[in-house]
Amino acid sequence: MSILDEPLYFGHLCRAVPAASAQLEPALVTLVGAGPGDPDLLTVKAMRAIAQAQLVLYDHLVSPEILRLLPTGAELIYVGKQSGQHALPQEGIIELMLRLAKSGRPVLRLKGGDPYIFGRGGEEAQALAAAGVPCETIPGISAAQGAGACAGIPLTHRDHARSLVFATGHLSMAPKSQRNDTPPTVDLDWQMLARPRQTVVIYMGLGALPIICEQLISHGMAPDMPAALIENASLPEQRCISGSLQSLPSLALLHAVKAPALIMIGTVVSLRTELAPGIAHAKKNRREAISRS
Amino acid sequence: MSILDEPLYFGHLCRAVPAASAQLEPALVTLVGAGPGDPDLLTVKAMRAIAQAQLVLYDHLVSPEILRLLPTGAELIYVGKQSGQHALPQEGIIELMLRLAKSGRPVLRLKGGDPYIFGRGGEEAQALAAAGVPCETIPGISAAQGAGACAGIPLTHRDHARSLVFATGHLSMAPKSQRNDTPPTVDLDWQMLARPRQTVVIYMGLGALPIICEQLISHGMAPDMPAALIENASLPEQRCISGSLQSLPSLALLHAVKAPALIMIGTVVSLRTELAPGIAHAKKNRREAISRS
Repeated sequence: MSILDEPLYFGHLCRAVPAASAQLEPALVTLVGAGPGDPDLLTVKAMRAIAQAQLVLYDHLVSPEILRLLPTGAELIYVGKQSGQHALPQEGIIELMLRLAKSGRPVLRLKGGDPYIFGRGGEEAQALAAAGVPCETIPGISAAQGAGACAGIPLTHRDHARSLVFATGHLSMAPKSQRNDTPPTVDLDWQMLARPRQTVVIYMGLGALPIICEQLISHGMAPDMPAALIENASLPEQRCISGSLQSLPSLALLHAVKAPALIMIGTVVSLRTELAPGIAHAKKNRREAISRS
Repeated sequence: MSILDEPLYFGHLCRAVPAASAQLEPALVTLVGAGPGDPDLLTVKAMRAIAQAQLVLYDHLVSPEILRLLPTGAELIYVGKQSGQHALPQEGIIELMLRLAKSGRPVLRLKGGDPYIFGRGGEEAQALAAAGVPCETIPGISAAQGAGACAGIPLTHRDHARSLVFATGHLSMAPKSQRNDTPPTVDLDWQMLARPRQTVVIYMGLGALPIICEQLISHGMAPDMPAALIENASLPEQRCISGSLQSLPSLALLHAVKAPALIMIGTVVSLRTELAPGIAHAKKNRREAISRS
């Protein structure tokens, strides 16, 4: 890793980046989805882009296992976001990316999951296109897909869900002066999310979990609707805590679930108990095969 | 390819499969998402499973480019489904898979997209688990993700969509005797799909496109809501036809769009005109780099 892999501030970075030269053709920016965490869940295309990268801007949600795949000499710049704590505001990330590309250096922009599913890849692609910078997007396995496959929760199922909804559960805080009197809110379409026969996956919603469960119940979802929290989807340390809309907030506290965690809601969650034995059996076989070889 | 890569019928297959032996430990079934079509969009894990496969049950939506990655000696069984035309009913696929696994032969079950997003992977994993067969699921890039990245349509965007909905648009036909009098229907939650500030992706909905557009408009969506059809997502022959809810059914006829095609609905579709130049620029650079090397 380079000296640049610590959180940096925008003013600092701008001094380090050469000013764009009018003569240079802007270099390619590749927006790469790093998937849910397990490096084996990278696409072949993403893996190839990572293996050739020289200059990488990466987010908080990119796993260390994936960063280790970058070439030894590659320059890494952390522009990550942790809930409420941004190393660099989005405008800063975009400006930095533009300056680097315009200085002729190809940029690998590495994001957790899929850049076009809650990854703000759309905003970055727009800014690049407006500035005449060539841009390619490589999709990634989204956390919900990794979590579903590893935890044994099919995201859709004919007997359970005819549609699948992805949303984010960011908390909106009142202005500081009113914070004591005004509880935080979550800007979601509760009426839509509470409809029957669908699977709802909420990204980045752990902090808002009690509000989410309460709102869904008050909009008509059954309190005993199966629901799960999946922490560290697809990584060896993945945990899946399942219960119901009513019990999940307490279970999250009891098990000290930490972000990043996904919330899955819907009767498909109940399939987990059926599917888990087959998954465990497969894992056991794999371990035995490894120990034999 | 093997002699088995032609559509087969259930009776035929069952005779070819040895009866399960009580002594044998059942072999592993791996449900693998083959992604949207481009072999580079396979995950590393899927690619590895494909390279080692000896016995493969594959669906209609798996691209020939991906089947070519299977080892020369692998036995391929086509169990695919084309709209309204099933080579093998779902129960038959499951029974065949169980017999093969129980006879001790590891099975690669290869499906287009992601097995847990409208891939009926959940039903197959349930049947395997119930029969004590070990089962692993490898997620895949879903067609919507491949289409979004290649066509320049971010699936979510802060200024456009706070949620993303995946649904299927299968036509339900009336019984044969009443078919002349009763038009086909589509069983979707129109009220939910017509909500504002979301992106709606409908899989397998080309045949139902006029009904889908009409229903969304009659449930309150603006007739000029941007909408697109993406044919052959992620493949070199990908086509993206965009218009509005009102114009899309005519455009589909005009351009003779064929299945498999995705329907994308929402204001994110309008970003395509902004993003397309950056994508074209990247493609041109890549072609030039290849011709130079």
